[in-house]
Amino acid sequence: MQYERLYSKKVTKLITLTTDFGLSDGYVGTMRGVILNIAPDATIVDISHDISPQNIQQGALVLAHSVPYFPERAIHVCIVDPGVGSVRKPIAVALGETIFIAPDNGVISSAVAALSTKSNLAPRAFELTNPRYRLPRVSMTFHGRDIFSPAAAHLANGVPLEEIGTPLNDFVKITPPAPKGESDGSLVGHIVYIDRFGNIATDIQESHLAAFDPARVYVTVRGHTLKGLKRTFSETERGELLALINSSGNLEIAQRDGNAAQALNVRVGDTVRVTKE
Amino acid sequence: MQYERLYSKKVTKLITLTTDFGLSDGYVGTMRGVILNIAPDATIVDISHDISPQNIQQGALVLAHSVPYFPERAIHVCIVDPGVGSVRKPIAVALGETIFIAPDNGVISSAVAALSTKSNLAPRAFELTNPRYRLPRVSMTFHGRDIFSPAAAHLANGVPLEEIGTPLNDFVKITPPAPKGESDGSLVGHIVYIDRFGNIATDIQESHLAAFDPARVYVTVRGHTLKGLKRTFSETERGELLALINSSGNLEIAQRDGNAAQALNVRVGDTVRVTKE
Amino acid sequence: MQYERLYSKKVTKLITLTTDFGLSDGYVGTMRGVILNIAPDATIVDISHDISPQNIQQGALVLAHSVPYFPERAIHVCIVDPGVGSVRKPIAVALGETIFIAPDNGVISSAVAALSTKSNLAPRAFELTNPRYRLPRVSMTFHGRDIFSPAAAHLANGVPLEEIGTPLNDFVKITPPAPKGESDGSLVGHIVYIDRFGNIATDIQESHLAAFDPARVYVTVRGHTLKGLKRTFSETERGELLALINSSGNLEIAQRDGNAAQALNVRVGDTVRVTKE
Repeated sequence: MQYERLYSKKVTKLITLTTDFGLSDGYVGTMRGVILNIAPDATIVDISHDISPQNIQQGALVLAHSVPYFPERAIHVCIVDPGVGSVRKPIAVALGETIFIAPDNGVISSAVAALSTKSNLAPRAFELTNPRYRLPRVSMTFHGRDIFSPAAAHLANGVPLEEIGTPLNDFVKITPPAPKGESDGSLVGHIVYIDRFGNIATDIQESHLAAFDPARVYVTVRGHTLKGLKRTFSETERGELLALINSSGNLEIAQRDGNAAQALNVRVGDTVRVTKE
Repeated sequence: MQYERLYSKKVTKLITLTTDFGLSDGYVGTMRGVILNIAPDATIVDISHDISPQNIQQGALVLAHSVPYFPERAIHVCIVDPGVGSVRKPIAVALGETIFIAPDNGVISSAVAALSTKSNLAPRAFELTNPRYRLPRVSMTFHGRDIFSPAAAHLANGVPLEEIGTPLNDFVKITPPAPKGESDGSLVGHIVYIDRFGNIATDIQESHLAAFDPARVYVTVRGHTLKGLKRTFSETERGELLALINSSGNLEIAQRDGNAAQALNVRVGDTVRVTKE
Repeated sequence: MQYERLYSKKVTKLITLTTDFGLSDGYVGTMRGVILNIAPDATIVDISHDISPQNIQQGALVLAHSVPYFPERAIHVCIVDPGVGSVRKPIAVALGETIFIAPDNGVISSAVAALSTKSNLAPRAFELTNPRYRLPRVSMTFHGRDIFSPAAAHLANGVPLEEIGTPLNDFVKITPPAPKGESDGSLVGHIVYIDRFGNIATDIQESHLAAFDPARVYVTVRGHTLKGLKRTFSETERGELLALINSSGNLEIAQRDGNAAQALNVRVGDTVRVTKE
């Protein structure tokens, strides 16, 4: 059996939600209600609703890491929207059978780029302009309910993008942080994400490390230097810090049975240096 | 296409859950199991499980804001239940095709009132008395599992309310806070909700402000006075406080790209004054 | 109508998820994507994702309390996995129509024991060895995505356990804490769980208390002694502490409309003593 054969494309009305709304205030519940009102047989799946308020970079990263594991035929709604109701456009971006719905502020751009690289398809962007596919009354502060959810549900129902929106020449892309090579051959990257376990993910990808010997590479963060990339946690003792390639293919610093971010007192944006000696 | 045409009523077994159970302890998971055991094809949708423990007013508010966006044909289970297992009755309240299931402590009364106003239907109340539609063993402390979830699932399966319960003449209503007009024409309301973003919602509705000029109204909270209601966030600078009508139609104080509740150091119950000068 | 008749077994592709992943980082969202990619018509239900990081005992307890309320025909994925990617095996354990999928560290053993006692069936264990039923590339740190979710989805699709795994003679069991009888007839147990409300659950089960008179039993925790087991909260005043049998059949200390764990300043592992005088 081949990889392609394992994966079905039968889910026809799959809508994912990624927001910074949290789960306490009922905002996400209301969005689910709007969607089911329009598309009663939609399957709604949460990716995360705990993106830090208004943190577009974080939302972009979480979405880009999760979306490639979903069926191709899916509608991904992503709302991290500082200044909701301001000049930014509500948009939809299609890549083959995958559609993203979001405010035009770059929050979907990393995920679109990831899928585009993989599928070799060019994204088509639309502004969500047709008032027929919004709720009858659009509030100033809750476009997730009034514009984005209805658009997703109508698309799930088969309404064509061309009917819901107007073609756009372009949409906003954010530039994710990237490591820089130095003249001495070392690499300087950044902490881009710290997860619940305190694992420290960087913008240094496995491919950036091609010139380094995994057993003899040195990773320095906050004055603490680790030697070598580990292959499994069992190569370390309990409480020991280690560097490894994480599940997204990025260099990560972790602590076995512990919280590396707390142990090292680091935060997103801090520098990580990779050297040969 | 008209508004009515956009909305389908095809979801036949939609059950929503709103509780103060949190998502950590597995209580909500257990309720989902009970429901799926009885009604395997039910669609279960969470509104919120982070109502503050035993805060009936907050639960009532979140439910009332969310329920109107769901399909009419839905069963809304809402459990905020101080003194579970005490004298309060377990009830169901039907309004057309919508059924609410809850402890009889007022937690559903705002949502019932909202739908009743909209639909012009009178609610019919029942006490959930029939032991056949409970779990075989009813605990003292987890009626969500033993009474409310089974009732919802059996109703979703088509068992009539009259079979599950006994008609009641009335059910408990809570009086939500309301603003008061003063002799000088000003209005004194209250903070009723602070959301994840620190947005400060009040009990002052848009209709209460009919006598005020939106451009020249003054809103005072904690000694801080804002002039005029804004229409979009783009009318303000980053970090600026503003007053606006929020997505529920209430007066709200927000901070662009910030947390107004922290900036103003306010809490639920605090006074908000609206004046003409 | 009999109890048995009330419960249907029609849900054929029910998969539950219990993890310590939290809901912020998108890990659970990614697992849902993997499952729906392979089994598009699976029903995915969350039990809890807020097990304390790497707390196997807590995960085992939450799972054991929730699983018995689900349909028999269900696949329960439970991932609390200190030292992921180390020597521990990925396993599946079948009990009639119920299948558990987990790292082999004991996290499912209490739930398996509970179901086994109830059904009188012996569990059959398998190591998840067949690479065909993993994602093509297995990371070092995210077996939830790469091994456990694909296995669950393929099982939901009807692939037999014998095809996905290799029979095992045994799997890891944890010994949950248990109370000890003392020579003077008293019973010494432990706090095993504190929930969101501050309710204090112990390892003392109702059956352990058969020799005690419910009205005259004394329960002592942290120097505080409560007399008698209450049947309902209405037997107490607001703010009063009480001892009761909780919804899992265990001795619990609670506070009416309050947080007993905060009031008593206790934590998991603390001793609870039951005496006749």
